[in-house]
Amino acid sequence: MDRPRFVIEASEAESAAKQKGLTVVQHLPSLVESAKDLARVPISKFPVGAVGYGSSGRVFFGVNLEFPGLPLHYSVHAEQFLVTNLSIQSEPRLEYVAVSAAPCGHCRQFFQEIRRAQDIKILITSAEAGDDRDDTLCGQFSPLRHLLPHRFGPEDLLDEDVPLVLEKHNNGLSFSNKPETFSDDLINHALEAANRSHAPYSLCPSGVAILDGEGKIYKGWYMESAAYNPSMGPVQAALVDYIVGGGGGYEEIVAAVLVEKEGALVKQEQAARLLLQTISPKVEFRVLHCK
Amino acid sequence: MDRPRFVIEASEAESAAKQKGLTVVQHLPSLVESAKDLARVPISKFPVGAVGYGSSGRVFFGVNLEFPGLPLHYSVHAEQFLVTNLSIQSEPRLEYVAVSAAPCGHCRQFFQEIRRAQDIKILITSAEAGDDRDDTLCGQFSPLRHLLPHRFGPEDLLDEDVPLVLEKHNNGLSFSNKPETFSDDLINHALEAANRSHAPYSLCPSGVAILDGEGKIYKGWYMESAAYNPSMGPVQAALVDYIVGGGGGYEEIVAAVLVEKEGALVKQEQAARLLLQTISPKVEFRVLHCK
Ligand SMILES: [Zn+2]
Ligand SMILES: [Zn+2]
Repeated sequence: MDRPRFVIEASEAESAAKQKGLTVVQHLPSLVESAKDLARVPISKFPVGAVGYGSSGRVFFGVNLEFPGLPLHYSVHAEQFLVTNLSIQSEPRLEYVAVSAAPCGHCRQFFQEIRRAQDIKILITSAEAGDDRDDTLCGQFSPLRHLLPHRFGPEDLLDEDVPLVLEKHNNGLSFSNKPETFSDDLINHALEAANRSHAPYSLCPSGVAILDGEGKIYKGWYMESAAYNPSMGPVQAALVDYIVGGGGGYEEIVAAVLVEKEGALVKQEQAARLLLQTISPKVEFRVLHCK
Repeated sequence: MDRPRFVIEASEAESAAKQKGLTVVQHLPSLVESAKDLARVPISKFPVGAVGYGSSGRVFFGVNLEFPGLPLHYSVHAEQFLVTNLSIQSEPRLEYVAVSAAPCGHCRQFFQEIRRAQDIKILITSAEAGDDRDDTLCGQFSPLRHLLPHRFGPEDLLDEDVPLVLEKHNNGLSFSNKPETFSDDLINHALEAANRSHAPYSLCPSGVAILDGEGKIYKGWYMESAAYNPSMGPVQAALVDYIVGGGGGYEEIVAAVLVEKEGALVKQEQAARLLLQTISPKVEFRVLHCK
């Protein structure tokens, strides 16, 4: 068997659905179980799978990640993984999501960073979706606005022309004097990641590039939530790229670079080091500041 | 003027309301602005005030806290502060909340740790409560179930007899050999805090006691969320007690003790140290393990 798949091309998604006489969207719920199998949940043993349909016709997987030895706010939920996966693949829009358990409030909030989030259609595949059980969300897609009415979101804080998650970002960051040492490639990827970071609230973008033992580079960027706490950290985002790209155990990660602003008010450095050293104790971690 | 007030006794709340010809619950929205003034928000400059009415008739304030130099997931939201305040004051039940901005998804989730959370009545005092603007929540109290339908919550994971937040906890933790050094009192308070911790998902309770320059002790305990990430850290909880108790700048904190289990899967130690050292660089921080 091939390595786990987290992105399915449009043509392939279509022919797989057609074989069952379904549209790709109708086919999403039946993919949730195979997504669930890819979760990395050593703490809860509660795998969650989220399968999303993007406007390009591609299908994306998201799973939850947990990190023993750290507080739970370092965890990544399946829905956050999914949005990060879309962002890394430059997918312009998330339209449908089938997910194995009722999305928690934290994830409903994180979704709000996508423009017109309230129109994203959600289907919960588990039969029991919370205590207000009715069949609205089991067996059919229902817009996110039904799951988070009276939301607090980007438009409470930002002008309409500020790019949101999944929209093109260029933060225009550069190094004052380019560092000479370390793997240049890794640094360039980390800077590129930081330039794609969504940090319109704190204006403290950041990006991380990680290197595995085979010389392969993965990268991810910080994505901020209007509600602060549900923000996706840059190391976590890079780990999404690592897992999507076929990465195995985290101990195979040998080096990492974080790029963030000098003197950033929202500073990732220490939390990033803590996470990296917990999952891969021998990692060579370097922080570079930009302006 | 007296020091800021975060707990108002029932008799006082009643007579203040009566003077305006209102019940205490009707009076809550007019207290939100004075709660807001107590927020500590150096990053967002977006103060949020939450005012809660408990079953004892007391009124509780909650405000948001932000910590420059750390990722945003270290922040405390006003609603989390409020619940922590009730927990510290041993208030058995939160019945009504008036809050200055639409509660974010993260907070709607955190509220779920309270039994029958879906019946807590919420009123948003800001005129504009998200983009689905209608007047349902502006000017009148509406149950939390309307804000987080199809919730994921404790009953998805726990037996019904497991105590939830605001219910009596005794985790039965003790030290194998009582440490001799350090301020004994501080250690005892930290252990007592850990014994009140709500950690039914990971079974990794923890508590923190902090000491200020005047010899005053404050304490708080870890409160876990079924959805993991919205959990309230033990240092943050102790800071709630510090602020409620009249504490000033964090740099006045001189020592802190964390008590948690040896080899805990969900371990607070390093994140706790990071937060404490960021807000009070000279703090003497000690970690004690229990069983
Ligand atoms: Zn979630
Ligand atoms: Zn909140």
